[in-house]
Order: sequence, then structure tokens, then C-alpha cells
Amino acid sequence: MSDTVKQQQTRPERVAIIGGGVIGCGWAARALAAGTRVSVYDVDPDATRARLSQAIDIAWPAMAQRGLAPDADRHAWSVTNDLDQAVADADLVQENVPERTELKQSVLADIDARVAPDVLIGSSTSGIKPTELAAHATKAPGRIVVAHPFNPVYLLPLVEIVGNSATSQATRTHAQALYRGLGMKPLVVRAEIEGHIADRLMEALWREALHLVNDGVATTEEIDAAVVYGAGLRWSLMGTFLTFHLAGGEQGMRHMLEQFGPALKLPWTKLEAPELTDELIDRVVAGCEHQAAGRSVAELEHRRDAFLTDLLNLVERYWPEAEGLPDRI
Amino acid sequence: MSDTVKQQQTRPERVAIIGGGVIGCGWAARALAAGTRVSVYDVDPDATRARLSQAIDIAWPAMAQRGLAPDADRHAWSVTNDLDQAVADADLVQENVPERTELKQSVLADIDARVAPDVLIGSSTSGIKPTELAAHATKAPGRIVVAHPFNPVYLLPLVEIVGNSATSQATRTHAQALYRGLGMKPLVVRAEIEGHIADRLMEALWREALHLVNDGVATTEEIDAAVVYGAGLRWSLMGTFLTFHLAGGEQGMRHMLEQFGPALKLPWTKLEAPELTDELIDRVVAGCEHQAAGRSVAELEHRRDAFLTDLLNLVERYWPEAEGLPDRI
Repeated sequence: MSDTVKQQQTRPERVAIIGGGVIGCGWAARALAAGTRVSVYDVDPDATRARLSQAIDIAWPAMAQRGLAPDADRHAWSVTNDLDQAVADADLVQENVPERTELKQSVLADIDARVAPDVLIGSSTSGIKPTELAAHATKAPGRIVVAHPFNPVYLLPLVEIVGNSATSQATRTHAQALYRGLGMKPLVVRAEIEGHIADRLMEALWREALHLVNDGVATTEEIDAAVVYGAGLRWSLMGTFLTFHLAGGEQGMRHMLEQFGPALKLPWTKLEAPELTDELIDRVVAGCEHQAAGRSVAELEHRRDAFLTDLLNLVERYWPEAEGLPDRI
Repeated sequence: MSDTVKQQQTRPERVAIIGGGVIGCGWAARALAAGTRVSVYDVDPDATRARLSQAIDIAWPAMAQRGLAPDADRHAWSVTNDLDQAVADADLVQENVPERTELKQSVLADIDARVAPDVLIGSSTSGIKPTELAAHATKAPGRIVVAHPFNPVYLLPLVEIVGNSATSQATRTHAQALYRGLGMKPLVVRAEIEGHIADRLMEALWREALHLVNDGVATTEEIDAAVVYGAGLRWSLMGTFLTFHLAGGEQGMRHMLEQFGPALKLPWTKLEAPELTDELIDRVVAGCEHQAAGRSVAELEHRRDAFLTDLLNLVERYWPEAEGLPDRI
């Protein structure tokens, strides 16, 4: 796929949000900031109206500081308990009902039956695979995709797009364009796996953290501090691969794998690591070199340091001690 | 331990750095910025001098932007291959030789024999337990502790302090004060476990990421993007526990565990999660409530959103697209 295609944006003009909880309200706020009209379906419209109104109050100042669309209207929303009405004229339907497979299958089949076959239907599911989600849809199941956001939806740009077994490449490209139109970074996941990509990574860290608490090694506060004051600072600029690429010195990832590869055999976590085969090494090294895009490790380090300096100056205004709370550690 | 004790700082006046690689040079730069004099021991002094000089050139502008000590002198360092000379008069010795247990044991025993019993000896080991490290020391093994920093050492504040079986509480407190004196956040780890705390968390994420690459699910770039544009943004402010506390709505962590606890049984990672017993739930919930320090979830959310807004405005100047590179995703 060319970069041009990847960059295409198509702002949805009208989004239907199915389920008005925290995630649904987050989607609604993001869409409003992008200048899109929002129609929310929920079984309890009164409570949802109150919740959404409050959510927009909270989200709007932050979104305004990020930049609103010129035609953004924070009042361009309505709530209904009539599904037909909610999805009428929508060019994107986003489902956010509770995380139960049968419920989602049924709701998605109901939506599929009601909207034109070219309307994209995204599900915010954290972990259910899209082919399972689309199982009861009969009209155009290929347009039912996972579109998994991250909390707070109105600020975090990541959305994971996972097509089902009937989803065409054109639909995936259309989905990318639509979510870009909402100001997001759509990551198209090529395989259907439990938890997609991001939640698997977060879960791995979370499970290890739970083991540490369970084994009495550390408190939740100590574990959080170990993230916040260390690796977490780097993870907003670089993921784990590019971070370790820089830990390898001028030789980058290949040297890093030589040096720290043996640690994969050590009981450093409760999780068994994969065998570090030549093929896996080559794949990881090639990936990092592609990401580096010709920049030397020294150049990447310089950029990282400039970022970290700005970031440290920023987070000191937000870390607990800035509030006069005792230092965490 | 009272907060007053925790906050104590004692700037070391002279630090001996044993081993002048990337980590050793990082320690040296940090110490110089704090106004401390630095003596580096390395078997190859000429190469080390060149490397350290370059490292200081790179680190100094970033450290200057963070704030130097009034008496900081970027030239207050020397390199020698004479261990006696390197450690003479040091009030902190920091060992950074290659990560081989026998080598570190031998070097640490050599240092222990040469310095007064009240001089703290910190090892930068990523994963070796301190009691093992101190095994060959005979003079005052209790003052040999793990003091594990994070790359780049001159910017990231976290240092994990792990005492060995002979380390007194007074020594731990003294170690905290010394590393605070170098502008760091010392996290005292209460148990000796492989990988301490932070590396276990990073390793868990890293191992899962390697599985994803190995299974052909995603490229390194896609996995990094899943961190950078999503969870990574939150992790510089809050760790995994406080983040999930906020994902639980007004009920916080307890509600979150009710809602997403069952996912621990799902194959979302290659890592098996611990059983979510009532005791573990209580421990996690109590930890988060302590961290919240009386602030409601809504207050914490407001603070998080203000931070994320500033951070997003910052990282956009550093993410690849700011350099005119194609979007990662």
C-alpha cells in the first residue's frame, strides 16, 4: 500500500454511537471535536444524556487545546433508544456495548440489517475477534471490523483496526481513512488474535505486575513508580523495539540481542520467551532498521534526549510531588 | 520510615565509576551535572576518555536544560586503569562491568577490599541478585547493593536499590540519600528477585512483543506504534495500576477488576496470570486508593487529561511524521 493511500482521510459526517458508557461518550466527544454530528443509541437515554453532557464538559477544554475542527459544534449530538433512528444516515457506526460476545453479536447483526452495505461498522471490543463478532450478521458482514480505541478516547490517537474473514482490503482502507478523519492513528492488525496487539502488550505487563503484588514483592505504588520514572518516559516516543535498538549502541538491535538475548532464558518474568532463532533475530533487526529510516543510533539518541528533556520538564508539573503529595518513592 | 527520612539527600562529593561503557559514561555525566567529581576506572583508559568526552558532549545540553548544580564542572573527571587510584576518596563507587556474575563478584570483592567500610558500593546490574553479587566480598559486604539505573542514565530518574542479605536498613537509607543527591528517584526493592521490578515489567512486554513478531502477527514498527500512540502516552504519568484505577470509572480499581478480571483467564498473552483471589483484589484496590491520596477518579482524570494534552502537543514535535518521515501506521 502506498503512503498516499495510507494517508487518506475521510471525515465521517455523521457517526452513530451504540452504547453510551465511558468509551461511547469518549467516541462522541472525539467525533464532535472533529466536526462530525453524533447520534447515540442507549437503552437509558436520560442517564446517557446526563453522562454525555458531563463527558463533553470534561473533554472539550482538552480537545480545544489540541485543536478543534473549524465547524466543530459541541452541541451537535442527540441520544435515542430507537436503534433505527440512531443509525439513520450514519456513515460510521461505532459499537460500545458491554464486552459479552453474544450481546455484541446480536447488536452488530441488528445494526448490519439496518444500514446500507457500504457503511462501516466498528466495534470497540478489547479482545473479541472480528469474525466471531460478525457471526450473526447476514447483509454485509465484511464491513464489521474491530476498531479498538484507548481510554481516554477523545485524546489517545491509537485505534486498532481488525477486519474479519470477509473483510476486503478496500474496507480496511476505508476504515483507516474514516478514523484518520476523526484525528486518529489507525493501526491495521493483520491477524485475528485475542486482545489484538496493544492489549496483549499491556496485559503482559499487567499480569507480571499482578504476580509481583501477589508474591508480596512490591506494592502497586512501587510498581507504578518503576514504570513512571523509568521506562514509561521513553514509551511515549518509542516502543520497546526502537528503545532497545538504542540500547545496543552504534550496532543497534543486533548488538542488543547478542548482549541481552541470553536474559530471555532467565526467569525474569513468569512469561516464557520465544526461542531467539536466527530468523527471529533477522526479523527484529530488519524491523528496527526500517524504523530508523537511515538515521544513525547517535541521531536517534540525540532526538530521544531532546524529547526526554522536554518531557521531564513537563511531567514534573504533574507528578505527585508537584501537588505537594509525598514522593511516591 | 517517615517522609522526612525518605526525602534526605546527601550529594556524593566524589564518585568512582568502575567500567566506562554506555552505562558508566551515563553515570559519570549525571554525577558531573550534580556537581560531583568523577573518577573512572577502565582497562582501556584511552578509549574510555574518548567515549566519556563524547558522552558528556551529548548529555550536557540536555542536562543543562534540566538544571545543573551551581558548582557543576563538566571537566571534573579523570580516567585510570589503576583501581586503587580510582576509588581513593570516593564516597560512592558505582560498578558497571559486563553482566557476568563471576566478573562482577570478583570486581566487587576487589573494590570492597580497597574502600572504607562506610563507602556505598552500587552495582548497575540489570538482573543479578545482590546477595550473589556480594558473595566474594569479605570486608563489609552489606554495603554492596544493586543500584540499577535506566538508559539514558543522565536523564531517567529511576534507580532500583536492592540490598543483600547483610545490608542494614541504615545502609538502604544512606543509599537512597546518595542517589537522591544525584537527582534520582531511588526505588528500594524489598525482595531479591531476578530482574528486580522494572526489568521484569519491561521484559514481560518485550517477551510478548517478540512472540508477536515470531508468530508473524505484526512487525516491530506496528508493535512500537501500538505502544507509542496508546498506552505509552499514559505510562509517563501513571503506571499500570493507577491507569486501570481510572479505567474503572468512579468506582476505580474494584470495578475495573470486576469488569476486566475475567480477561485474565483468556489467552490474551502467552503469560499466565495469577489467580484473582479476594486477597489479591483487596491488596490491589488498597494500593490504588493509597496512591490516589484522597483524590477522586474525576480529579485524577482531569489531571491526566491536562497532562496528556500537553504531552500530545509535545510528542507531535518528535514523532516520525514531524521529521517528514511517513507515518508509522
